[in-house]
Amino acid sequence: MSDAIVKQIEEQGNEVRRLKGDKSSTEDAKNEAIQKLLALKLAYKEATGQDYAASNARQSKPKKEEKPKEKKQQQEKKPDGKKQTLLGVGTKKDENYSEWYSEVITKAEMIEYYDVSGCYVLRPWSFAVWEAIQAWFDSGIKKLGVKNCYFPMFVSNAALEREKTHIADFAPEVAWVTRAGQSEMAEPIAIRPTSETVMYPSYKKWVQSHRDLPIKLNQWCNVVRWEFKHPTPFLRTREFLWQEGHTAFANPSDAEKEVFQILDLYAGVYNDLLAIPVVKGRKSEKEKFAGGDFTTTVEAYVACNGRGIQGATSHHLGQNFSKMFDISYEDPAKEGERAFAWQNSWGLSTRTIGAMVMIHGDDKGLILPPRVAAVQVIVVPVGFKTENKEWLFDAVDKVTKDLVAGGIKAEHDLRENYNAGWKFNHWELKGVPIRFEVGPNDLAKNQVTAVIRHNGEKRQMSLDGLSEAVKTLLDEIHDAMYQKVLAQRDSHLKTTTCMEEFKKLLDDKCIILSPFCGLPECEEEIKKASTREDGEGAQMGAKTLCIPLEQPKQELPSKCIFPSCCHAAKAFALFGRSY
Amino acid sequence: MSDAIVKQIEEQGNEVRRLKGDKSSTEDAKNEAIQKLLALKLAYKEATGQDYAASNARQSKPKKEEKPKEKKQQQEKKPDGKKQTLLGVGTKKDENYSEWYSEVITKAEMIEYYDVSGCYVLRPWSFAVWEAIQAWFDSGIKKLGVKNCYFPMFVSNAALEREKTHIADFAPEVAWVTRAGQSEMAEPIAIRPTSETVMYPSYKKWVQSHRDLPIKLNQWCNVVRWEFKHPTPFLRTREFLWQEGHTAFANPSDAEKEVFQILDLYAGVYNDLLAIPVVKGRKSEKEKFAGGDFTTTVEAYVACNGRGIQGATSHHLGQNFSKMFDISYEDPAKEGERAFAWQNSWGLSTRTIGAMVMIHGDDKGLILPPRVAAVQVIVVPVGFKTENKEWLFDAVDKVTKDLVAGGIKAEHDLRENYNAGWKFNHWELKGVPIRFEVGPNDLAKNQVTAVIRHNGEKRQMSLDGLSEAVKTLLDEIHDAMYQKVLAQRDSHLKTTTCMEEFKKLLDDKCIILSPFCGLPECEEEIKKASTREDGEGAQMGAKTLCIPLEQPKQELPSKCIFPSCCHAAKAFALFGRSY
Repeated sequence: MSDAIVKQIEEQGNEVRRLKGDKSSTEDAKNEAIQKLLALKLAYKEATGQDYAASNARQSKPKKEEKPKEKKQQQEKKPDGKKQTLLGVGTKKDENYSEWYSEVITKAEMIEYYDVSGCYVLRPWSFAVWEAIQAWFDSGIKKLGVKNCYFPMFVSNAALEREKTHIADFAPEVAWVTRAGQSEMAEPIAIRPTSETVMYPSYKKWVQSHRDLPIKLNQWCNVVRWEFKHPTPFLRTREFLWQEGHTAFANPSDAEKEVFQILDLYAGVYNDLLAIPVVKGRKSEKEKFAGGDFTTTVEAYVACNGRGIQGATSHHLGQNFSKMFDISYEDPAKEGERAFAWQNSWGLSTRTIGAMVMIHGDDKGLILPPRVAAVQVIVVPVGFKTENKEWLFDAVDKVTKDLVAGGIKAEHDLRENYNAGWKFNHWELKGVPIRFEVGPNDLAKNQVTAVIRHNGEKRQMSLDGLSEAVKTLLDEIHDAMYQKVLAQRDSHLKTTTCMEEFKKLLDDKCIILSPFCGLPECEEEIKKASTREDGEGAQMGAKTLCIPLEQPKQELPSKCIFPSCCHAAKAFALFGRSY
Repeated sequence: MSDAIVKQIEEQGNEVRRLKGDKSSTEDAKNEAIQKLLALKLAYKEATGQDYAASNARQSKPKKEEKPKEKKQQQEKKPDGKKQTLLGVGTKKDENYSEWYSEVITKAEMIEYYDVSGCYVLRPWSFAVWEAIQAWFDSGIKKLGVKNCYFPMFVSNAALEREKTHIADFAPEVAWVTRAGQSEMAEPIAIRPTSETVMYPSYKKWVQSHRDLPIKLNQWCNVVRWEFKHPTPFLRTREFLWQEGHTAFANPSDAEKEVFQILDLYAGVYNDLLAIPVVKGRKSEKEKFAGGDFTTTVEAYVACNGRGIQGATSHHLGQNFSKMFDISYEDPAKEGERAFAWQNSWGLSTRTIGAMVMIHGDDKGLILPPRVAAVQVIVVPVGFKTENKEWLFDAVDKVTKDLVAGGIKAEHDLRENYNAGWKFNHWELKGVPIRFEVGPNDLAKNQVTAVIRHNGEKRQMSLDGLSEAVKTLLDEIHDAMYQKVLAQRDSHLKTTTCMEEFKKLLDDKCIILSPFCGLPECEEEIKKASTREDGEGAQMGAKTLCIPLEQPKQELPSKCIFPSCCHAAKAFALFGRSY
């Protein structure tokens, strides 16, 4: 068994080296080969219980797996010496964003890899971001009268298949439980990929009269979509965390109004917490949620690879599900007739964290937007000697406690087995927005030195009124990070009516506003036309990210961008390569 | 297919009627028969898509299923008339606590039944209790330095089987995913029944030096234990929500200290939030967590059936798991030797809500302890006529808003299609701690009438300083509820050294302190000896609930309570029939 894997690993290793040496090979092809190699090594480890590299010295391990080993070796050599492990990200974001991403999320201690493919451990450093998003969004929906609840994760086949369009979209990715202990189950039970079919049979029971509406429920939970594409932590995982809201109304205008209230909250998560500008829009017919009437979305832009990324979606389901699940009541307006509820569903997932990493991170590592950072200020003592150590550490402790008392998430790093330089690198890699350097010279002047992570700027700050000043600075950092990303995006947001220019812009990492007829066939043709074949695997074609709610000021051309389309353009759509 | 079920339902219906008429039949036997009948009806509904009763008039439905139907019929008849649905719980708690329980949790809108057996919907009314517990406990563990994270719900067979004692306990209840979409998986993947085996491979990676300890992580998540015993909402369910903390320390005393800090927090959840007294203790060898060194627990007492109920457990795992999973580092004290981490795990689940319902509820329905109530005060207008309605409703609205502004969870019930009496019943059934009756006479005296749910007491309260007075009253209610349950428990908490008296006390719904040698064999014998065979099914025997940390003041007898045991008593153990 393991011999066969070793052979495969060796062959795949050669393939990776070949691709790396071959200038004509695409980044995607290289990454795919590296991912395959990693998967083989994981299989080897499962089969043998040993790391591949540890048992087979011929093979060099890719960088992202090196850290734990390196650390272990070093510490075993000199357990009580000062650790000077070479930290930092070994890959440049612009050169290989995919490898850079893997390195950042593991070295910044956001993600631990796991032995079930497509599943990852969310470590406290990333989970704290999720907790910040949860707190903010949960309070927002509660103000709208939404209440939290919890529905089972299991769904019977009968319920799952009730809405055909919907299930057609999800069926290939549904995970099935077929056995409990040693017993085969009489009927396999699915794990929710989303909970429409889990929840709506209850809604049917609860709705007996128009007075039972609206129903506004939300749950924070895990869902499973067993995708067979390459998994990527946060961005495409087989299990992920999200919230899903499911609401039902007696009339369509109330439902539609809520779709956009929720969309505004989603935009708020990106703009106000994650410092990421988003475009609000509707999904095209081709891209909308299966079984719903229309889907709205917030779309962000990832500069390093020029891709759009869907941020969160808020769907109006119309009466499709209510008719399938019989969520109805006697129509008070029409004696003897049934009225069906108007429904919405909306969801925001841990993908948010992946977008945040990709969009803000730099060659030094992660950059955390201040409002979701587990630690907003890290306080590091500098310039200490044996004779002043105690005094200095006390001062660091006092500064930190004052910040905490002032409502700032501050921590200090008083470890003595690391020097200040190592700590600077460490906390930069982890993306803490502000580093305080506290040393005797600054203290003598009643000040500390603040170093700002996202732009490297240094400034002295007085110890008087420090907490208030830090709060202002955190807001300033948030705004600057947002503006930087906005400028990046706007310089890559182009408008064209010409298909040839469209393709060129796409290869220049742009997202593109173009007139569009709205038909799924035409969207498919545009995707095909913009797919680039380059020998080493295809560069994916463009799809619509959304039809922006706010349309460009210029007049809409009469014709759809796709040359052979004979339909009139309905609106400007935002196109791009996409996650 | 459905014909066969109809026959079974009819037969089982006859059996239920027979048992109900037979004075010698036990409550447990009746409940079991009723549960079986309900399960058959569920199967009928799955097979036919119709309620059994709706299609077959010969069969009378058990009360707990009547409500939705009754409501529907009524509303269909007079959709705009005043609803006067007969509310209230049809079963007395003392007569049939199991049926009473089902009625209360469904009619109070805590639980909705679900079509996957053993899974239930947690509606907002119960989920709010869980949110209150989460907020309190989460803040408590964060003060201890514990951080939240999220590990995958899937676990490979290899990891699951690493610790043999542990897996032996869980294996029969593990749910297995074997298929994704249409593809059979190469290896089945388990759903976590608990996460020791999910998390500890990562702990191994993270622990390279003693400086990497302690690790203190917690997650709030769902787990699955596919039990084949009768499921009961909250108390025994196949999927449930919990928190699980997993910590690792460099030395055993720090680990052991934390076990008891967590136990104190668990006691706090019961004492300070749920108004339920608990006994803190250690589990016996027989009852402790499989694979751990020792288990501590908080145990509550359910008066209506005389059973003990385990409230939450905090385990010291010793080095058992760290040795199996190699969570180790070079021992700084002994050159060249590996030191293994000392670990704890601890969990608290949604079972808390079931205990709360069973312990506090009465014949009118649920009684919510004030600190976990979604609504603490319900404000109801009384004595209104057409001419004063607007003025009165404004007054009700103002009172409610003032309470909310004062930090009270207050809502008003201004529905016009229900009269005041119906509302009183409704909110009593839902267990709201305080009802405000706001009417013209009271308002003229600048006061409202408060009616206290748990004891029915009425008192007038001045509108001046109302919020503060309500806060005091809520605390007073909490204390009174706690004292009431404490008195109930203490009057059923007996001490004996005689096995015959032990059995008699058990049948008198007592929990019993008796000298105990601690051996699993002896515990097994005591269980057997106290099992009561009575023709209609066995009444379960007693087991140890715990060995209380605080031992009785009286001197420990030298002999174990079990007559033929020849070992010395080690401590007083608390015995009882148990959930």
